[in-house]
This record gives sequence, structure tokens and C-alpha cells, in this order.
Amino acid sequence: MMDKIKEIKQKVIESLPKKVKVKDVEFEGPFLVVYVKNPQELANADIVKKLAKDLRKRIIIRADPKSLKPKEEAEKIIRQIVPEDAKITSIFFDEEYCEVIIEAEKPGVVIGKGGSTFRKILKETGWSPRVVRTPPLKSKTIESIRSYLLSVREERKEILKRIGESINRPILHADKWVRVTFLGGAREVGRSCYLLQTPNSKILVECGINVSGNQPPYLYIPEIQPLDSIDAVVITHAHLDHCGLVPVLFKYGYRGPVYLTPPTRDLMVLLQLDFIEVASREGTTIPYESHWIRTALKHCITLDYGVVTDIAPDVRLTFYNAGHILGSAIAHFHIGEGLYNIAFTGDFKFERTRLFDKAETNFPRLEALIMEATYGGSQDFQPSRKEAEENLIRIVNETISKGGKVLIPAFAVGRSQEVMIVLEEAIRTKKIDEVPVYIDGMIYEATAIHTAYPEYLNAHLRDLIFHQGINPFISESFVRVDSPSKRQEVIDSSEPCVIISTSGMLNGGPVMEYFRALAGDEKNTIVFVGYQAEGTLGRRIQKGWKEVPFTVDGRREVVKVNMRVETVDGFSGHSDRRQLMNYVKALSDKPEKIITVHGEESKCIDLASSIYKTYKIETRAPMNLETIRFI
Amino acid sequence: MMDKIKEIKQKVIESLPKKVKVKDVEFEGPFLVVYVKNPQELANADIVKKLAKDLRKRIIIRADPKSLKPKEEAEKIIRQIVPEDAKITSIFFDEEYCEVIIEAEKPGVVIGKGGSTFRKILKETGWSPRVVRTPPLKSKTIESIRSYLLSVREERKEILKRIGESINRPILHADKWVRVTFLGGAREVGRSCYLLQTPNSKILVECGINVSGNQPPYLYIPEIQPLDSIDAVVITHAHLDHCGLVPVLFKYGYRGPVYLTPPTRDLMVLLQLDFIEVASREGTTIPYESHWIRTALKHCITLDYGVVTDIAPDVRLTFYNAGHILGSAIAHFHIGEGLYNIAFTGDFKFERTRLFDKAETNFPRLEALIMEATYGGSQDFQPSRKEAEENLIRIVNETISKGGKVLIPAFAVGRSQEVMIVLEEAIRTKKIDEVPVYIDGMIYEATAIHTAYPEYLNAHLRDLIFHQGINPFISESFVRVDSPSKRQEVIDSSEPCVIISTSGMLNGGPVMEYFRALAGDEKNTIVFVGYQAEGTLGRRIQKGWKEVPFTVDGRREVVKVNMRVETVDGFSGHSDRRQLMNYVKALSDKPEKIITVHGEESKCIDLASSIYKTYKIETRAPMNLETIRFI
Repeated sequence: MMDKIKEIKQKVIESLPKKVKVKDVEFEGPFLVVYVKNPQELANADIVKKLAKDLRKRIIIRADPKSLKPKEEAEKIIRQIVPEDAKITSIFFDEEYCEVIIEAEKPGVVIGKGGSTFRKILKETGWSPRVVRTPPLKSKTIESIRSYLLSVREERKEILKRIGESINRPILHADKWVRVTFLGGAREVGRSCYLLQTPNSKILVECGINVSGNQPPYLYIPEIQPLDSIDAVVITHAHLDHCGLVPVLFKYGYRGPVYLTPPTRDLMVLLQLDFIEVASREGTTIPYESHWIRTALKHCITLDYGVVTDIAPDVRLTFYNAGHILGSAIAHFHIGEGLYNIAFTGDFKFERTRLFDKAETNFPRLEALIMEATYGGSQDFQPSRKEAEENLIRIVNETISKGGKVLIPAFAVGRSQEVMIVLEEAIRTKKIDEVPVYIDGMIYEATAIHTAYPEYLNAHLRDLIFHQGINPFISESFVRVDSPSKRQEVIDSSEPCVIISTSGMLNGGPVMEYFRALAGDEKNTIVFVGYQAEGTLGRRIQKGWKEVPFTVDGRREVVKVNMRVETVDGFSGHSDRRQLMNYVKALSDKPEKIITVHGEESKCIDLASSIYKTYKIETRAPMNLETIRFI
Repeated sequence: MMDKIKEIKQKVIESLPKKVKVKDVEFEGPFLVVYVKNPQELANADIVKKLAKDLRKRIIIRADPKSLKPKEEAEKIIRQIVPEDAKITSIFFDEEYCEVIIEAEKPGVVIGKGGSTFRKILKETGWSPRVVRTPPLKSKTIESIRSYLLSVREERKEILKRIGESINRPILHADKWVRVTFLGGAREVGRSCYLLQTPNSKILVECGINVSGNQPPYLYIPEIQPLDSIDAVVITHAHLDHCGLVPVLFKYGYRGPVYLTPPTRDLMVLLQLDFIEVASREGTTIPYESHWIRTALKHCITLDYGVVTDIAPDVRLTFYNAGHILGSAIAHFHIGEGLYNIAFTGDFKFERTRLFDKAETNFPRLEALIMEATYGGSQDFQPSRKEAEENLIRIVNETISKGGKVLIPAFAVGRSQEVMIVLEEAIRTKKIDEVPVYIDGMIYEATAIHTAYPEYLNAHLRDLIFHQGINPFISESFVRVDSPSKRQEVIDSSEPCVIISTSGMLNGGPVMEYFRALAGDEKNTIVFVGYQAEGTLGRRIQKGWKEVPFTVDGRREVVKVNMRVETVDGFSGHSDRRQLMNYVKALSDKPEKIITVHGEESKCIDLASSIYKTYKIETRAPMNLETIRFI
């Protein structure tokens, strides 16, 4: 390894202009950190781009600590350089990384035109600026993640160095093959978990839990034992059926990296903490303690969309927008030097929504696609967004006019924000009377995380927020419910209102209390806007059960369902059958093989068979525990 | 484990008649050994049968060593009891197992009517008799295997005890699934290797080598690492593409049992020793040293056809006749208590041949079949045996009449003996002039092993040997070539003759010398009677190459092929296309799933598709490194 680093240092020196004084190079996870005595000489971004291209590595330039201006002086300079309307809220110096983290309400102003202000800071202070947006809603999750990561930064540096060395280890096996083993999420929805394997590497894509039955994937099979034989874990998005058991991997010995987008990391931590809190409250088995969430967090490496990154000696990962929830990604793997390309869609939406652009179809190369099939059945057509929104508004209006309450169970992450934006606009444009929209459960916190990552929202929403000054998430129509007494008030109030509350399938969360209180009154309406899995209470109510069993404080009771029960299809973050088929057609590179997963058995099989018939692409709908070889 | 043994001892005592005094019980591999103070009370076989049924275990009864007659006295008694015409050739007392091994020319006479003499020996001496046939041809292999196993019998006892404890360990996983990973031999001929896996056990079926390219199966994949995580290795027959790398498993850490039939064990050792000897002579890489063959031998547990045996906590193995070569078996696995039944055909012949009955089709239950597809192509029809024999005899006669020599390259095991029997009968019945039939290479030794296991031959051949006194294998027409000078004599002689020599595909062995010497003369004929794999010299000659490159003593030369080149199809030990299809039809229990392996890619796919179309059975032709789940 020492030789490799020496060799790379030599290459760096050769590639950079002579005047740049390279002090040292070091692996840091998938990145190569170049310590430079005079970083101001690198203020021209093209030099670093050229270096990255020459080395085929992602490069981070850091100043040699000795060449940094003292912190007080540097802060003064920064405040002088940055225009006041950037609204800097805090400046923090990270000595470990020789970085200055500047939190501002308008990060674009800190960066300046073409990065001019940014480069000026680097040149005049020596510190590399990292610019972060001050979110309009305070997210406790983001704050505690940031402060936790700062508190463990020395340990994290060691972890990243170790990961970097592992990624850059020599390739041992000359054999060339690629295969995927399905550990969960094949012919079922929930507990997604796939092992992508080459003779040299093992990548675990997703590690979810079956939320209805708490079933884990087949983590005990020998392909991934010991768990530390895995090179990398890749998470496409934050829903628990995709990442709920990541901490379990660490509990049982994994110590490698977890790759995900920045919003996925934050939402994942939020949902995992909630998951074990709910479990402990309900007395069900907790698969891991909260400190394992922190251990996992220490090993997270965030990657933005479109950034090609080495994650194993023979594997490069690139995330692309999946359009499903905030930060959701299609994970594209380039294996070997041009050997094979395989992408996992995760959950994806091939339609522009209120929040996100439609899923990416443009990949440099693509030989195989592992795609979701939630709505893969031949009859699984969803109404258009427009229709869905009109339906929702109509139902809300009908209920309000009778003086009833509208209960919308929703996942904290995804549908909630989508529905919020629809309702906000409808109220703003007077399509709905001004009634309070109560937000209960984790939805508020999840929304705060959305406001911290506007660059992950679609162009229209960004424009609304940045240029028109309308941030629908912080509209006054939304009222946060953050205590049991407040919740009781909402329930007791005779006023009509809308309540958006978790969980989305009525298998726990504050929505249960609302439902229990509101179900008996036929003035009220429950509106399902998301997928209800088999076995959940949501599915039963949706099916029309008139009495549902409930356990309250250990006592069993039966809740009569007199309220109006409505399902508004079309808000789903999943592609419907037409969108799934169109997605395959729209792909820039026609894959040789498509594998359908993440759908009930019949849907996976139906979609696979339809894709084969329509596009003459080889398809498979494997079972869990099966392995498919690709090359 | 101690508790389990105690519990079993209690059950044994309860199941046996009161007068039987049980001293101890012990696991010995898959068997349960019951030590009894008065074994004569168990001379009635029904009592032991009942015990085996009650315990669902295979039982071995041994005398408590203290109750044994002294050896000299016991030998006298045995010689008195056994009629002289049994022709005892040796008596050996194995104190470890309290057994007396009686080798006789007519073992049936030692056993007596309905086992009467056998039981008398047990009753009067206390020693359990084991009766072994004195083979008419001395096999060095069998002799050295027997003496080696005796020399390590204490170590072997320990090994068997450990294996027994492992088989009887508690079942840990409640999950129920069965899957097979294809490590070699899928869509190819050679390096057969399949991993049968349940949540509780791993069974490796076959561990062969690709003889043309010396390619091993994918033994490095995590499913079978570490190798000692495997519970059992099961070998269907002795050809190297099925068992050539068994010693490598031991070299890299496996220490579990190898299950096979008695003839498979002996032939396997013969072929493995030859394999590494040839490799060392030719200077190619030797995958293991000979002591690893001995280590493997120490772990062999032989099972006869039809005997149901526990080989893992949730797996029972039964071998059935496969009709391919001596001792070849279909391996049938019963998994769980009635959960699933899956059989691996190995190589099989669904036609009665000169040597063997046709492959078994009658299984108690069968849900899945992994079957060979060597001749699975839609055009792969073979002539009948009768036609094949007539062709061979005609070609031999034509060549002899011109004064030429007939060279028949043949596998040492299988085709050689088949052809020998045809030629012997043809000479005996004057269909061919009395010419010498030279046997070179390992064929003689392999034939000797055949004579030691007449019970593995078909009824007609047994009748010929035992009742008509004609043992074709020891006919005077056969002349053994056992030295280079003798070989040179055969080559130099101007007399017509037949030469049967190894290897069967002209990729080594003495056949190379014969071919080099005889190829130039158009009076001579080379007759292929077996499958010629792609890449072998045999295949090239068969294709009609007129010049073939040769390396002799390091010098390269070109051999001109003027001799007549003939292929006589129909002697194959493999089922042809019609037989493969008929076999599926003939199965007593229609399987739900059939997997085709052991055939070129197109043949595996063609056979799978034809079976599906004809019988509406789900089929698959997997690739190496893939895993199929069955339940």
C-alpha cells in the first residue's frame, strides 16, 4: 500500500503545474486527498479537474496546515470577502480537514459567480471553504448528525483511510464474472437486499426490513459471511424497506463504508431512530440499539448525483436521480475497465412530481437493470397527478363542508411532502378554504430535512423557493403537532381540518390515535395516498373492513369504521405499469438483461414477461436466495 | 452431544429384547454402533431391523470386546463352520471394530442360506463376520486401499465419531429452503460441482476437473468458504470430471466425509493417482500431492445402492444405479422430514448395456431432478447397442484382413470393459479371428476392480460369471501390456491385432505412443468409441485433421494421419437424446423442476426446452455461479 501511495504521489506531482508544492497525498474513503503548501495556486478549477482525469480518481485539495491563516484572522477575511446578503449564520473551522464550513442562507452568494468568491477565500486564507445552506426550518436530525460527525472526526479519518486503502488494494483474481444474489425483496415488497459480486468484490445494495412483519433479509447465508467480507453497502433511498437494517450489519461485524446521497443519510438516521423508538415503545424486538445507528453513521460516505466514485478495486458507483423521495437514487455500477454495467433502480418514479424530476434514463452504458415492480401488474395503472390532485382537493372540500376532519396517513418521507405542497397551493389559490393542516409524527422533521437540500428538488420548486420567495414547506397553513396534549386538542376540536400523520400504512405512529378517535364519525374521511402492504391495518381498512381490532394500553378493543374511506391513487412515488414500461423504452442504452424485484410475485413475473414480449430483452423474476450471473 | 447419545442408548435398550445386554452406543459416521455383551442374541436379523426402524438410524452391532473368543480359537471355529467349497483365501481380525474379515472365492457360501452360516460365526465366536470376495484378478488398488485403511483405523475411528456427532447435531435454523449453486459443469462438460444447501447443511455434489483444460470448479466463491463449512461431499462416479479434485478439498481444509459406492471409491483412487502421475510426468501443474488422495480416502464412507443414510441433520442420501460405469450412482437427497426430494443423476445410461442395468427410475418421492445433458441436443441420437457392436466387429475384421492394427482409445473405466466384453464374445463365437487384444494403460487394473464387485454388474453378466463359469474379463484373448518394451513389441509386430489403450480422448497416456506409431500406415484403423471433448486431440482426429502436432521428448513434430479414422457411436455410457427424454417419462414420480447440466451450452438449453414442451415440467439450464432455489 505504501508503494501505491508513493506511486500516486509521483503521478500527482507530474500532473500538477511545477509551482504547486505537494506536501502529501492520502486516501480518504474513495477520495484522494492532496495536501498542498500553496493551495491558492490551485484556485483555477481546471487544474484539479485535469488531475482527477489523469489519475481517474476523485481529488480533494487541502492546504498544508502550516500554510493556513490563524482562525480569527481567517474569519475576518471571510466576512470581508463575502457580500452581506449571503447572510452567513455561522463559520466553523475544521482543523482536521483544513476546511472552513460556512453556513449561509444563500450559499450561492458565498460561492460567487463561477466560484470566484469561493476561490478568493481559499487564496487569501488557505482554508478550503465548504458552503452549507442554513435551512429555513431547523432540523434536529441534521444538527445532531453534524455535531456527532465533528465529535468523531479523528476516528472517522482513520476509518476513511482504511476504506481508501481497501478500495485501492490490488486486484487478485483474473477471472471475470458478475453475479447478483437476492437476499430479500425478490418477489416481495420489503426487506430489499441484493449482493452484487465479482471475483474481487462484494457490494451489498440495500439492507431493508419488511415493515409489516419485521422480517430481515437472509443475512445469514454464506455469500456474505463474515459480514466484514463485504466491501461496500450502497443505499438507494431512506425508506426502511431499503435501509432499515444497515445498523444490524455493523452490530454483526461490518466495518466498511455505506454509500448514499446526503439527504438519504439524514433521512435514514431519522427513520432508523424512529423505528427502534417505536419498537421499544410497542415492546417488539429491537434489532439494534441506537449506538449502532451512530456506528453506521460514522461509516457513511455521501455522494451527490452524477459523481463517479471508486468503491472497490473493480467497481465504480454513480448515483442518478430516481424521483421517488428526497435523495432517492438509481445506483449505477461500472465493473472492471469496461467489463460490465449494471444499475439498481431502487424505487423510482418515471414522472415529474411536485417535488422531483422524473427518474434518470441516461446512462453512459447499461448492460443490466435490476428494476422495481411495485406496480408491475398488467392492470396497475395509476391516474395522472393532475387527476389525483383534483380528487384529493374534492374529497377535502366535501369533508370540510360537512364539518368533518380529513385524516391522511402518510410515510413521513415522500407522500407527506407531496400532499403538503398540493394542499398549500390549493389553500394559497383558494381552491380549499383556509383550514389548518396538522402535521404530526416525524413529518415535520422530515420536511425540515427537505428544506436543507433544495438542490435535490425539481427546478420548478427551486425556482418557487429561491426566486419567487415562496417556500411552500414553511407556509402558515401548516401547524405542527408536537405533544400528546396538542394532539388531543386537534381531536377534540369541532373545527374541520386536515391531518397528515405517520405511519403511512397504519401499523403504528400517531395516526393510530387519530384513526381510533375519528373512525366512528361518518363526517370524517380517511384518505390513503400511498401503497398499503398486505397484512397492514391500512390494507384492511382500504379493503372495507367495518370493524378493526385495536390494542390500547394492553386492552383489546374493536374500532368501528363509520368514516368515509377513500383511496386517491396517483400520488405514489412508484412508477405505475405504464411508467415502468416507458422507462425501459426511454433508456439511453438498451440493456441485455432486466431483472424485476420489489413487487408481489405476480407483479414481478408479469412485468418481466411483458418487458420480454415488448422489447425482446431477456428478463428474470428471481426468488430470494437465488443468484443470477450476468457475465 | 453427550445427552443425545444417552437418550439414544435409552431408546436402544427399550427397543431391544430384555435379554440383550447393551454395553454402549456410539456414532460412527452415519451409523450407530451398538456394543452388546451377548451379540449371539441378535443373530436374528429382524431384531436389528426393528431397532433401525424405531430409531430411524443405520445400526451396526458389535460385540463387547470382552465377549470375543481369542483370535486363534475363533479362526479354527470359522474354518470348521464354513464349508470348504467357499474357498477362504484369508481371515483377518479387526480388533478395533470387533470384526472378522473373511475373504473367499465364493462369499455366498460363507454367508450361507439366509445368512445361517454368517450368524453361526457371530454366535460361536462373538466376532461380526464381514465377507469379502477374493477377486479373480488381483487389484493392486484394492489391496493397497484395504491395507492403508487398516493402518489408519484408529485415526479413522476418531474421524467417523466426529462425523457422526456432526450429523446428529441439533437443527438450528427454523427457516425452510433448499437451493443449489452451480460451481462447475453447468452448460459445459467437465468439472462437475454443485452445492446443495439448506439453512442447516451444505452438501457438495461432485468435485471434478475439466480434463481438457485442467480447469477447476469455482471453489473460491464464498458459498463454500471455508471448505470445512461443508457437511458432506457426495460423488456419483469415479470419472475425474466428477471427482478429480476431491483431494484438493482436503488440501484446503475440508475434513468431512466423502460418500460414494465401494467401487467408486476404488476406481476414484486409481484414477486420481494416475491423474497426478501423468501430470507430473508431463510437467503440468499438479493440483495436489498423493498424500492428499490418502487423506481423502480416510474420509470416504461407502454406501451401497438403495441404502438410506443420514448425512446431515436434515439430509438423507440414497444411491441408485445410474448404469454409466461400475458403481455409478444417482444421488437422491431427502431433505427435512418430508420437505423436499432432489436427485442428481450424475452421468447415466437409460439402456441396459453389456455391463450394467439401465438407470433407476423408481424413487419414493422426487420433486426436482438435476440431470446430465451430454447428448441433450435435438439431433443427438445414437445407434442401438446391437448396431454399434456390429459396426465395431466389421471394422475390426476389415482391418485384420488387411493385416492392420485396430487402435481403440478408451477411458480406463467404462468403455474399455464394454468393448472388451464385445470382443471377447466375438472371438469366442468366431465372429472375429483369434487375434490378440492388447490392454494397455490402467485398463487392466480397472478391470480387476470390476471383477471384485460382480454385484454391481447386471444380472446377465453375473449369471455368466457365477453360474456358467465364464468370466469374460479373464479370457485368454486379452494380453496385458505392462512395460514400454512390451508396448514396443506390440507396435513393431507385423501381426494384426486390437489395442485398447488410455486415454480415451488422446490427451495423454500410452495411446499417444500407439497413435504416433500407427497413424502413418493406412492399413491401420483408429476407432473412437467414446465422447471426444472439444479441444482434445481425439476431437481433432475425429474431425478429419490430416496432420496433428505432437511433442515428443520436448521436440515438436507433426504426425501425418493416414490411418483409417472411424467413430462407432452407440457404446457411450451416456444416455442419448431419446434415452434422456424417455428417462423423464419413466420416472415413477413426476418432478416439479428439472435442471439440465453436464452438456455443452446448446445441449443443456435444448434439452431443458424440450422437456418443458413435452412434459410441462419447469426446466432451467443454469450458468456456473448461479443459484436456483427449489423451495
